[in-house]
Amino acid sequence: MNEVEHLFEKLTRYAESDFYPYHMPGHKRRGFGMLPEELYKLDITEIDGFDNLHKPEDILRCLQDRAAALYGAEESFYLVNGSTCGILSAVSCALPAGGHILMARNCHKSAYHAAYLRGLSVTYLYPPYLEEYDIYDGIEPWQVRQALEREPDIKAVLIVSPTYEGRISDIRAIAHIAHEKRIPLIVDEAHGAHLGLSKRSVRNSCQLGADLVIHSVHKTLPALTQSALLHVNGNLIDRGLARRFLGIYQSSSPSYLLMAGIDNAVEYIGPGAERLFGYFREQYDTMLEQLAACRHLRILRDIPERQDTGKLLISVKQSEITGKQMYDMLHDKYHLQLEMASESFVLAMFTVNDGRDAYWRMTEALLAIDSWLEEQARRLRTKTPCKERTARGCAGTKAVAGKGKDAVPLAAAWDMSSEWIGLTESVGRHIGEFINLYPPGVPLLVPGEVMTEPLCGRIRNAIEQGLEVQGIQAGAERDEQHFFIPVIREEQIKEFKLVNKEEIERKQRLRI
Amino acid sequence: MNEVEHLFEKLTRYAESDFYPYHMPGHKRRGFGMLPEELYKLDITEIDGFDNLHKPEDILRCLQDRAAALYGAEESFYLVNGSTCGILSAVSCALPAGGHILMARNCHKSAYHAAYLRGLSVTYLYPPYLEEYDIYDGIEPWQVRQALEREPDIKAVLIVSPTYEGRISDIRAIAHIAHEKRIPLIVDEAHGAHLGLSKRSVRNSCQLGADLVIHSVHKTLPALTQSALLHVNGNLIDRGLARRFLGIYQSSSPSYLLMAGIDNAVEYIGPGAERLFGYFREQYDTMLEQLAACRHLRILRDIPERQDTGKLLISVKQSEITGKQMYDMLHDKYHLQLEMASESFVLAMFTVNDGRDAYWRMTEALLAIDSWLEEQARRLRTKTPCKERTARGCAGTKAVAGKGKDAVPLAAAWDMSSEWIGLTESVGRHIGEFINLYPPGVPLLVPGEVMTEPLCGRIRNAIEQGLEVQGIQAGAERDEQHFFIPVIREEQIKEFKLVNKEEIERKQRLRI
Repeated sequence: MNEVEHLFEKLTRYAESDFYPYHMPGHKRRGFGMLPEELYKLDITEIDGFDNLHKPEDILRCLQDRAAALYGAEESFYLVNGSTCGILSAVSCALPAGGHILMARNCHKSAYHAAYLRGLSVTYLYPPYLEEYDIYDGIEPWQVRQALEREPDIKAVLIVSPTYEGRISDIRAIAHIAHEKRIPLIVDEAHGAHLGLSKRSVRNSCQLGADLVIHSVHKTLPALTQSALLHVNGNLIDRGLARRFLGIYQSSSPSYLLMAGIDNAVEYIGPGAERLFGYFREQYDTMLEQLAACRHLRILRDIPERQDTGKLLISVKQSEITGKQMYDMLHDKYHLQLEMASESFVLAMFTVNDGRDAYWRMTEALLAIDSWLEEQARRLRTKTPCKERTARGCAGTKAVAGKGKDAVPLAAAWDMSSEWIGLTESVGRHIGEFINLYPPGVPLLVPGEVMTEPLCGRIRNAIEQGLEVQGIQAGAERDEQHFFIPVIREEQIKEFKLVNKEEIERKQRLRI
Repeated sequence: MNEVEHLFEKLTRYAESDFYPYHMPGHKRRGFGMLPEELYKLDITEIDGFDNLHKPEDILRCLQDRAAALYGAEESFYLVNGSTCGILSAVSCALPAGGHILMARNCHKSAYHAAYLRGLSVTYLYPPYLEEYDIYDGIEPWQVRQALEREPDIKAVLIVSPTYEGRISDIRAIAHIAHEKRIPLIVDEAHGAHLGLSKRSVRNSCQLGADLVIHSVHKTLPALTQSALLHVNGNLIDRGLARRFLGIYQSSSPSYLLMAGIDNAVEYIGPGAERLFGYFREQYDTMLEQLAACRHLRILRDIPERQDTGKLLISVKQSEITGKQMYDMLHDKYHLQLEMASESFVLAMFTVNDGRDAYWRMTEALLAIDSWLEEQARRLRTKTPCKERTARGCAGTKAVAGKGKDAVPLAAAWDMSSEWIGLTESVGRHIGEFINLYPPGVPLLVPGEVMTEPLCGRIRNAIEQGLEVQGIQAGAERDEQHFFIPVIREEQIKEFKLVNKEEIERKQRLRI
């Protein structure tokens, strides 16, 4: 890459000049209190010479172009409000308000928020389920084709790849299917900002034909939390609309610290990619080989085109412990802070900034826990015959999400009046809030979907196991009868159905 | 205030522990490249012990409570996407989608964005105009009363105070008027985060009865750019809805650096307020006294209840130079970076983090420029008789904003198809984009409003003077015939009027 001016260097030079700031921010570049002075020195606003993220013409434009070149995108935007604002903007600009979107049901909550804000009608794609690991797999191209043929008014497709757990879809094929219908493909590649940067790596979605791609540079590259990129390709997206929505969903006072952090990451990765990713891959593969010795813990392995190198999913489904117990053990005994715990697995993330210690500490801890599990199992075997674990910890995880059948559309449902009732009484009722397992924040139930027995069971299980279920409230006592969930009032549902019927009739009359 | 745990201390302690991060962010708390290591050390995500901004129960809840106590608010929320997300959230939760809002016409663009996203019907309040300084004054209580009586379906009121230029409204009286109608008052107090913190200070809007108050802590307090607070008071606001929209408009990976910056500012100001603001006030007043000697530059002075202490508005209306020339002179010759230049004034900001040097450097520069202007004027007087300056620099600044008459509502207009035409040809046409003077980003024209001769003249003037006018595009040559503006296609306006008429008739038929 060519020599360019970097934001950090420019900010540092400016901090050393004798220019006095009679502008925001109010700290006036002077350190005080607890935080390091450096932070304040570098923290400015859109003053002369520092461009404007919402109308970049100078240094910020150069840096964005540099990011575009790194990813093979036509145009890239620095984001300071995370992938959240990237997804909101992408969905908002890809199809008109009130339009029809085809969306993977394992999308991040921000995708649902976009659908709500823009009053979209949503058709969900339910990814195949990998029962062995209790996770959603990637979306299959045939699913997209089938959905688009069944519903020809769909105006955009949104999928997530890699998923939170690392499953990767065939983006090239899916982009091809969407483009045959002349509609754009949005890929929430928040967990794939490291893809396509070295020769040996799996390609990223810009390189594979997606129209809008969102990258959380803070997730899998070494950038500061809350920073991300949005890439735009092709001619199906109105670039002006993309800018409009980025201007809406992002602060009009974007942080230069966050932007300097993206620049620093891009500058670091760009020229060093082969070396950095080479080392990363080598360490990661060695760890997987060593972990093949595990007898109770199972590590999800697959070809890199299907499973992301970097995510380490450790299933405890064949052991006698739950995901949360495994997570706590790694935390409390080994001081390893993992990304998340599910009912039956835990998830760890590795990046180019991990040193050798990251790999051996994880390997040693997992081998030790596996030995301990073997010991436990041996003791157990002397009492009861060995069996595939179907303990309550994993019961119900098949019911991964609410289904569209009988559901009230999200855009209408979330605005309806709700009442709180006991969790167990909510079966058959339309739910009034997002019910998420956090992390990752993929909704189990979307407002307007109907609670089922298996879903209710799964929520109970998750709570029992100490996982965080967002949208549920605990009463005074922490037992299952004391958990409450908001459901839409019956009369609201009736009224909606009535108005909906009238509206359909009116449209038929007017032949809209 | 009581002893509390601070985010910076906790982050530092954690950075020194032996816990290894197998989670985001991808830098793994290791420094690299250009940026200081300290930044990465402190930058984490929602791991065990660090709470969750979107569901605060521990340290973040304590810190938010502390901010609420400082401002006299019932409930406060840390914002990591600037006042932008605070305004979007406040407007979204204060009234239902499609509702009717009463809004000051000098609001920040994010207020218009909220109206667009939520499909609101908007009635504007045009603040009185201070012709002497070419700025909007604060909104008067009688204006609010009159509007609410004229349009009884208004569901919320939104005003900005202090304005960008420092004009303050009588919030207590306006809150009282709104509450008589049982509707909430939202105050965009982004420029007033320093109000109400010391005994001698003007009260802030929480203390004066507003229901939703937005504070840019980075603007007038020493916090990091892009950080802000939203305060909620009273029982007219659904707190659950406030949380919902904050969850929508903010990253699901909020930056702990930004949050630690808010904490640091609150901790610094809280106990030190009397000393800090005492010194600040003393320095500021001394400067104003010294600047009273100016003969050509005029400093806006008023009682603190009407004009914010901290903003320094320097009018050049009685001189022979433009605001931009003044701004450039201060920048190029004196190395003073001001907040903004308008056609006829420049604006500087002072905060508690300014040292003595800030005041004397500004005072000396302004006195020197004033002497130079006197010299220029003396030379001129030998040629032509002295007259009140009405040079082209200031012509047309009375036409400060588009009027509602004949306008198409924003929510519909911004989605209509536009075409680019020459600026001079746009008079009488409905404009397709926001036309803003930046800073401050208050729209001259909102999509759907009609271009007038005086507004067109003002835009031409601003461009000629080298000010940034957002929404206009320059052609190849920089003369007035080569500026282009997007206007809504005529057929779209006709269609809208037709559909609108049908809709009104339908509602009359259904008696909605």
